Amino acid sequence: MSRSKPRVAFQGEKGAFSQQAVRQLFGERVEVVPCQTFEAVFVHLRDKKVAAAVIPIENTLAGSVHENYDHLVHFNFEICGETNVRINHNLIAAPGVRFRDLRRVFSHPVALNQCLRFFARNPKIQKEPFYDTAGSVKMVLEEKLTDAAAIGSAVAAEIYGGSILRRALEDDRRNFTRFFLLRRPEDARRHLPAARNREWKITLVFSTRNIPGSLFRALSAFALRDINLAKIESRPLRGRPWEYMFYLDLLGHTDDVRVQKALGHLEELADFLRVLGCYPKGD
Amino acid sequence: MSRSKPRVAFQGEKGAFSQQAVRQLFGERVEVVPCQTFEAVFVHLRDKKVAAAVIPIENTLAGSVHENYDHLVHFNFEICGETNVRINHNLIAAPGVRFRDLRRVFSHPVALNQCLRFFARNPKIQKEPFYDTAGSVKMVLEEKLTDAAAIGSAVAAEIYGGSILRRALEDDRRNFTRFFLLRRPEDARRHLPAARNREWKITLVFSTRNIPGSLFRALSAFALRDINLAKIESRPLRGRPWEYMFYLDLLGHTDDVRVQKALGHLEELADFLRVLGCYPKGD
Repeated sequence: MSRSKPRVAFQGEKGAFSQQAVRQLFGERVEVVPCQTFEAVFVHLRDKKVAAAVIPIENTLAGSVHENYDHLVHFNFEICGETNVRINHNLIAAPGVRFRDLRRVFSHPVALNQCLRFFARNPKIQKEPFYDTAGSVKMVLEEKLTDAAAIGSAVAAEIYGGSILRRALEDDRRNFTRFFLLRRPEDARRHLPAARNREWKITLVFSTRNIPGSLFRALSAFALRDINLAKIESRPLRGRPWEYMFYLDLLGHTDDVRVQKALGHLEELADFLRVLGCYPKGD
Repeated sequence: MSRSKPRVAFQGEKGAFSQQAVRQLFGERVEVVPCQTFEAVFVHLRDKKVAAAVIPIENTLAGSVHENYDHLVHFNFEICGETNVRINHNLIAAPGVRFRDLRRVFSHPVALNQCLRFFARNPKIQKEPFYDTAGSVKMVLEEKLTDAAAIGSAVAAEIYGGSILRRALEDDRRNFTRFFLLRRPEDARRHLPAARNREWKITLVFSTRNIPGSLFRALSAFALRDINLAKIESRPLRGRPWEYMFYLDLLGHTDDVRVQKALGHLEELADFLRVLGCYPKGD
C-alpha cells in the first residue's frame, strides 16, 4: 500500500539541525516544512497543515528552550518521541575548492563563536557572519564561491551539494540538542510503538504555591513509589510572585498503575498539572 | 579619599546588555573590560586583570546558560551579587534621521528575530543581520547612515551617541536576563554589605547517585528546616550515565545556623557539594 509522505514542521532553513532531528525520528520518507519561528511551527500543527512537528527543548551548553516549554503549555499537543542531535559543525565548500584556497568562512555568529580555536589556528581565514547556519551553506554553494566555505550541518552539505572539508570544528564537543516530536492528541496514540521492551519517559508540568517544602512534598508522590526523575527544572510564573512552574521528566509509562497513583497524588498537591506526553526514551 | 575605578570584565562589545548589568551593580564609577568569550571573562578574573566579572546565568526565554554554570564549578570564584536586566530592544539611528527615512535595520539575528511583529508592520524596512547587537549600533553611528537604524540597548545608544526612535520593539516583553557578579574568594567578603535588613540568596551545586528518591532525600535537608528554594535545575553529568548535577538557589544566609545545619545534612547525602556564593537578592 502506498501512502503519501507525512509533512513535518520545524523551525529554520532546510538543512538546519532540526532537520537532522526529523531524519533521526522519521527516516527519509518525510516532507519537511521549514517555519520561520517556533510559534509558526505550533500554529502549523494546530491548523493541521502538518502531521507532526519537531522542536528543540534543551541544549547541553545553552540550556532549556523556555519559549518551547511555554508553547507546550499553551497549545494542546502530545510529546510522542524524543531524539538527541550532536551539534557538529562542518566546514562545507563547493566541490573542487581546497582547504588552502579558503580566505572566508560564513555562518551564524553563534556557530562562528563555537569554533574560535579553528579560527585561531587558521589566521588567514576571516569569520563572516551570516543570517543562518544552513542558509550560509546554501549561499556558498549557489554562488559557487572559490575562496569561501560555510559552517553547517552534514545534512546541509548533502542538501545543497557541498563537500565537507573538515568535521567537528566546534571548541566544545559536549554540544547536544534534545528534540521533541509533537502530534495532535487525536493522532498521538496510534503512532506510538508498543510499550513493552522499551524504556519510556513522561514529561509533565505542574505549579505549586512556593511555601517552604512544597516541591519536597510534590516529589514525595514519585519518591515514595520508587519512580525515578530524569530532569527537573523550575521557572518563576511571571506576574505571580512566589509561584513556580516545575517541569519534570520521569522514567515510566502512564499505563503503569504505580505511575497513575503517583500522578493522582501529585494532582492533590499541585495547583495545576498537565502531562505533556509519554514517549519512548531517545538514544 | 580618591580611589581608581574598579575594572569589571563582561562578555560582548561595549553597550552589550551585560554592560547594563554592570551599571546596575556598580553605578558609573567602573572601568569595563569587554571580552570575546565567557571563558575569557573567567580567565581575566583568575589572572587578576580585573577586580570582578559579570556573567549572564539565565534568560526567561532562552533558559539557563549552562556554559557559565560549568565555568562556576571549574573556576573557584564567589557569587557576590545578582541583578536582572530587562532585554529591551530599541531602534537606534544617527541624530537627525527620522523614522520615515528608514529602509534598513541592522542587528544580531537573534535580536532581529525577537522583533518580527515590528518588521511585519513596517514592510518597507529590511532586516540586515550584523555580527553583534551593540556593534550594529556602533556601525550605524560611525558610518552616519541616513536610511538605516540598529536594534540595541539604551546603553549602546548612549555610548555611541545614537537617538532612540522607538522603544520596546521586542515581540515578547517577558524577556529578562539574570546576571551574577563574581569576585575572587579573597576579595568576596569585604565587598559584601551587612546581612541585616536584606533578603539573601545562596547558590550551590551538588551531585547524587541517581537512585530513585535521591533528590527527594537531598531536598529534605532544606524542607525539614523550612528553608525555601528559589530555583532548581538538574543536568546529567557527561560521561557518567545516571549521575546528575543539581543547581539550587535557596533563600537564606550562610551565617544562619539553620542553613549551616542544612548544608551539613546535604553534605552527608551528596557525592559532591559546592556553595557558589551567598549574596543579596536582586530586584
